[in-house]
Amino acid sequence: MATGLSSLYARRAKEVQASSIREICKLISNSKICSMAGGWPDPKTFPAEEIREIATRVLTDYPEMALQYGASEGIPALCEELARWTASRDGISCTPDQVFVTSGSAQGMELVAKVLIEPGDVAFVGLPTYFGGTGACRTFGAELVGVPLDDDGMNPEALEARIDGARSAGKKPKLIYIIPDFQNPTGATLPVERRKRIVDLANEYDLAIVEDNPYRNLCFTGKPLPPLKAFDTEGRIVCLRSFSKIFCPGFRLAFAIGEKDMIRRMVISRQFEDCCSNVFAQYILLEFIKEGLLDDQIEKNCRYYKKKRDVLLESLDRHFPKSVKWNRPAGGFFVFVHLPDTMDSEELLRHAVDRNVAFVAGTPFYIDNRGRNTFRLSYAQADEEAMKEAVAVLGRLIEERTQQESGERR
Amino acid sequence: MATGLSSLYARRAKEVQASSIREICKLISNSKICSMAGGWPDPKTFPAEEIREIATRVLTDYPEMALQYGASEGIPALCEELARWTASRDGISCTPDQVFVTSGSAQGMELVAKVLIEPGDVAFVGLPTYFGGTGACRTFGAELVGVPLDDDGMNPEALEARIDGARSAGKKPKLIYIIPDFQNPTGATLPVERRKRIVDLANEYDLAIVEDNPYRNLCFTGKPLPPLKAFDTEGRIVCLRSFSKIFCPGFRLAFAIGEKDMIRRMVISRQFEDCCSNVFAQYILLEFIKEGLLDDQIEKNCRYYKKKRDVLLESLDRHFPKSVKWNRPAGGFFVFVHLPDTMDSEELLRHAVDRNVAFVAGTPFYIDNRGRNTFRLSYAQADEEAMKEAVAVLGRLIEERTQQESGERR
Repeated sequence: MATGLSSLYARRAKEVQASSIREICKLISNSKICSMAGGWPDPKTFPAEEIREIATRVLTDYPEMALQYGASEGIPALCEELARWTASRDGISCTPDQVFVTSGSAQGMELVAKVLIEPGDVAFVGLPTYFGGTGACRTFGAELVGVPLDDDGMNPEALEARIDGARSAGKKPKLIYIIPDFQNPTGATLPVERRKRIVDLANEYDLAIVEDNPYRNLCFTGKPLPPLKAFDTEGRIVCLRSFSKIFCPGFRLAFAIGEKDMIRRMVISRQFEDCCSNVFAQYILLEFIKEGLLDDQIEKNCRYYKKKRDVLLESLDRHFPKSVKWNRPAGGFFVFVHLPDTMDSEELLRHAVDRNVAFVAGTPFYIDNRGRNTFRLSYAQADEEAMKEAVAVLGRLIEERTQQESGERR
Repeated sequence: MATGLSSLYARRAKEVQASSIREICKLISNSKICSMAGGWPDPKTFPAEEIREIATRVLTDYPEMALQYGASEGIPALCEELARWTASRDGISCTPDQVFVTSGSAQGMELVAKVLIEPGDVAFVGLPTYFGGTGACRTFGAELVGVPLDDDGMNPEALEARIDGARSAGKKPKLIYIIPDFQNPTGATLPVERRKRIVDLANEYDLAIVEDNPYRNLCFTGKPLPPLKAFDTEGRIVCLRSFSKIFCPGFRLAFAIGEKDMIRRMVISRQFEDCCSNVFAQYILLEFIKEGLLDDQIEKNCRYYKKKRDVLLESLDRHFPKSVKWNRPAGGFFVFVHLPDTMDSEELLRHAVDRNVAFVAGTPFYIDNRGRNTFRLSYAQADEEAMKEAVAVLGRLIEERTQQESGERR
């Protein structure tokens, strides 16, 4: 009799929820569905030819290095290159030993949580926010406290009130998880004054900040604002950056920047996870950057996704009823939609999937089960024509529901 | 003032020790040292040309899939292929949903610990044993109990006594961590009767087993013994297998096999780590297996490493004094050396490094700080000539120490 191990599971395993997005993406892979669900980039943006050429060269010139284990912190030449690249692009000055190549920025988040979170520690997160960040904190027993977002992202006053509240309740405030640029899911950008103020709060209250920023480089108008890290005088911020949206996600390459000793702790914890990131992929990325291809690729992707954003926004303007609200993001992948309060986005999703349209219902982005009337649309993955049609389908479904509801009220 | 985050570290981060092997490898990279330290394979075994050809084809034929995110459990075709491959090679029958592609088997171990270990749970481990396994258990608060190994690996009677002991002390025995084939570091192989008995004990005492088996396929004489998993009637065993030693480590590809629900929990936990393994690397491995190249590669590696083992054993016979004991492994990478009781292998290591020879001192393989007179030699990475010379250097250093000691005793 196969009893399995269920009687032996730890509490954290029983509590952890599957990532809604990963599950939806699994459901809809290989189907005819128009997915505006995941934050998956459009494969048309992948620099496949350049990667092919570089891969061939790497495997011809130094296979003995590219196929071997590498340092847990990343191959040294890549760490150096990333330190330079970040300094020139974002004005964050850092040394190579403050750079840590991770397998996706999710791993960076997980390692921060592993190093910092004791059970019961409080992590402050946006309401709504990406559940990758909150999931990692939960795994290590953090108590999550939500800070409502407005059109400009996280409000420092609301944050401070909650830090005070946690303290008064005898709890240990530990970290702030924040996505300052083109926030996931709301698309909001945090103004500079708020960035400074939130760093000040971390200093004042002895907190860490995780600045999660996978979409920062996909900025459609001019340069992005300075990162919070640029105002970090006390080494309290760990920045998480990703190559998934500006290069390709299949390589699982990202990096963290932080104060030296914190990075060192994360590296040591990583030695008992995957030891190091894929070394072959690291060398390919290194050559890609050294040849100056990454900056071109970013520009290309910005133009590409800006156009897709415009297509989605135009379609929404055309097909969605006036009672529905959404943002106009200046970068990234996402539009966040608010239906009338009485409407349920999960119910809408079920009907939408029947008509081959997918999105992510909003509730998983809220740690308090709110957001039932919200959902997230991504303009990244779907083709433009399919997206137009999908929005028309959604618009009709919402209209139907609105009429039903007004009928019921009458 | 950069204060950093040290005041905010969780206890697990303060307690975790850097992997001695990873640290040594870092120290000795780019130097003239003859390293018999890490379990790094010989780069001459890497199938670089085959990988180059396949990589080119994958990036020409389906870059949109190979560079995209993939399922957290592994790309479906690879899971299917691995289920088939394991069935035919090891007689473990399993369905594709019992197969989970991980980023190194270290990640598999970490995820088992994440799913199963509550603080205070007892994990039984070999004395000595690979510290990757024990490190992962420690991260989640396990109490480790050592089971002394003999020439045949873990003794089931000694194991049972310790399970009883833990129970009587009011503790919760949770899992057995075991490396049955060409154990790391002792090189020992567990006989079939012991395999069966240890599975019985897990059933009897309601325990999980982690069967960590990165070296299994490097079996120098005939076929390896059936894995413990072949006797697992209750779905209690998670098998960890790796492609690092039979393909290449730079791809960070490994897989776990286990009961369906357990694998599912591990997959969900992984969604908050690195989301999925490098997808490009998974497709390359898939094609490599489908073309029948993996089985050839394994045979080639077996012949290659058998020869290197013979070179090391002959050198040891020639250069090491009679007071020193070591095993003659039938596979894998390692010879484990016992110096006379009074001798200190860490002191020997310091002198050895001065003469450009490196190994791993034995203590990190013991959870109880014993093994000061032991060390591990790997015949995998170093060139044969360099290895012969290195062993001669070590032999002389040991002789010197022996004479000093006998002088002191007189």
